[in-house]
Amino acid sequence: MARVISLLGKGGVGKSTLTLAMAQAEARRGKRVLVLSLETVSTIGLLLDARLEGEPTEVEPHLWAVHFSTTALMERNWNRLRTAEEEYSRIPLFREVYGQELGALPGLDQFLAMSALRDYDLSGKYDYLFFDGVAGQEQLRMFAVPDQLSWYTRRLGEAFQKSAIGQVLSPFLEPIARAILTVNISTENVRSTTGRFTDILDEGKSVMQNPNRLLLFLVSTADPLALTVARQLWGASQLLGLGVGGALIRGEADGKEAFAPLPVRTIPEASLTDLIGCVEGLAGLDPVGFPKPFVVDEQARTVRIFLPGFGKKQVELNQYGPELTLRAADHRRNFILPASFRGLRASGAKFQDNYLIVSFG
Amino acid sequence: MARVISLLGKGGVGKSTLTLAMAQAEARRGKRVLVLSLETVSTIGLLLDARLEGEPTEVEPHLWAVHFSTTALMERNWNRLRTAEEEYSRIPLFREVYGQELGALPGLDQFLAMSALRDYDLSGKYDYLFFDGVAGQEQLRMFAVPDQLSWYTRRLGEAFQKSAIGQVLSPFLEPIARAILTVNISTENVRSTTGRFTDILDEGKSVMQNPNRLLLFLVSTADPLALTVARQLWGASQLLGLGVGGALIRGEADGKEAFAPLPVRTIPEASLTDLIGCVEGLAGLDPVGFPKPFVVDEQARTVRIFLPGFGKKQVELNQYGPELTLRAADHRRNFILPASFRGLRASGAKFQDNYLIVSFG
Repeated sequence: MARVISLLGKGGVGKSTLTLAMAQAEARRGKRVLVLSLETVSTIGLLLDARLEGEPTEVEPHLWAVHFSTTALMERNWNRLRTAEEEYSRIPLFREVYGQELGALPGLDQFLAMSALRDYDLSGKYDYLFFDGVAGQEQLRMFAVPDQLSWYTRRLGEAFQKSAIGQVLSPFLEPIARAILTVNISTENVRSTTGRFTDILDEGKSVMQNPNRLLLFLVSTADPLALTVARQLWGASQLLGLGVGGALIRGEADGKEAFAPLPVRTIPEASLTDLIGCVEGLAGLDPVGFPKPFVVDEQARTVRIFLPGFGKKQVELNQYGPELTLRAADHRRNFILPASFRGLRASGAKFQDNYLIVSFG
Repeated sequence: MARVISLLGKGGVGKSTLTLAMAQAEARRGKRVLVLSLETVSTIGLLLDARLEGEPTEVEPHLWAVHFSTTALMERNWNRLRTAEEEYSRIPLFREVYGQELGALPGLDQFLAMSALRDYDLSGKYDYLFFDGVAGQEQLRMFAVPDQLSWYTRRLGEAFQKSAIGQVLSPFLEPIARAILTVNISTENVRSTTGRFTDILDEGKSVMQNPNRLLLFLVSTADPLALTVARQLWGASQLLGLGVGGALIRGEADGKEAFAPLPVRTIPEASLTDLIGCVEGLAGLDPVGFPKPFVVDEQARTVRIFLPGFGKKQVELNQYGPELTLRAADHRRNFILPASFRGLRASGAKFQDNYLIVSFG
């Protein structure tokens, strides 16, 4: 089991450089580290002065680096899909198109990177996976995929099976879903594909929402704009249940109080080699005592959600039956209320010490 | 008809600030300008010190600004979908879920922003739409959607209609597609939905690939990393058929030759107000004489593709029947070869003056 580390912050604050420094710090302690880069041009590759390929390359002892290629990952998955479809369908649809022709559409980068991250984790070859993504928002969308998809599956799954469209589609979706999930059909026939899909999402959720498995760090300079972005990315991470381990402030910054109660480390402007000393120990941080994103007080009939970076006007609340929907910074998440809240309606909400406190009555 | 302007470059080079300066320059000339921002935290909003909403707000004479909210756009589209489905299906699927509950998945931001851009264009209210996106790669994926989707439609469309899955799905897809395309069903029954969809994609393609309608600018500092990123984004734009109008280099930069033959403008580090003078006239640039992305020489049996920023090792070529597939920087595009090339195979490829020259024989 690897721990995934990823840095969030405004563009240009130095996320890629710090990601590499953190990765090198761990590799030099003897940990097996893979740095994954998902950018048009791999900053990591340029910093290492290495041409990164779609397969991990060892760039120094214990340190591997890989540049996600969405087009290459599409090819591999498409060929899997074609094979699966040909086995099941008399008039295959996907045979007409080759994987080498496929262009990428928005979102595919994140879905495929998520699935590749899972494969690297399952390989057992690495202690740390450092993910250098594209932009804060897209990175959060990506890490939230298991949570969001499992919500859609739960809410739409049953309705889908009952619906007219679901009934005609099921015979086709089964083999395709199996191909996408790389389920070995002969050995897996005990569990239904839907069940298997739900398992994978639950497993993904339990990884993404466990700070021992995914740990995010905020990066900022002293620039008020960069601080605001970092704080809101922090809030959005909390909303999505993703653990934030600390803040790294570049330069002679003085923004420590903006990130309380997180551990804050000031990072000087320095060469990559010197930075390694500045980030030592961060990746291995013990996340005990971090603020929980969602705390229910059954006695007081309140729900407390840790949402730093936001004010009341920036948050939207909705309640449908047993679910509470929260929206902030264009991210939305559904929380299931405990059984004891049945029949109660959200009656008030206020912000206090970075917590949104929702009262029910 | 509005012209869409968007800036590309490495994070932190100042894209949002320059976007706003260019927008203000046009507004002060009396043009009707809308700035659209698609970031977790709207830098544009912070620079304007305005709280931007999901609907355009006039922030100064002739200048409007809007912050795309993916969650809000999802709500609107979902409600449309539910209404359409209820009309057509006895056992509706989407009724079970409310638009206000929907979480966002990767890619939705770009698809919805594309559709919103189209609506703002069709409204006829604006001369310029300045789009401030998230990161270079995602922005290019977004602008390439009409081209990529129309390729998928063309290559898979016929196969889909013939396939077993296509035959059972068609009765369901028709009303849903109509809802998504906001086609007025009663007046539009002459054209099939598929035909209408193809029309919309073709129209989108003709907008995105016409530099009079979409014009991109590269932004860089003198930092070699930022220059490399900008050059590769330039090449990727060319590959995707998106017009690049010039390069803006921040600071006392000396990288003009990196962007030849583009017009290059040096932009000093200055306040927003002072920057307006530095970017004047850029948005209205006449793109006559720009390098064409794809030039066929039927006599010499060659195809010349303008791909600055790339070398031979970074480009992958494939040929399937009448189509030539080109991949660079994780973007891929399919070009249809002219009829006179029928039966010929790509026999060689070399780079010369930023052009990839492919010979056929």
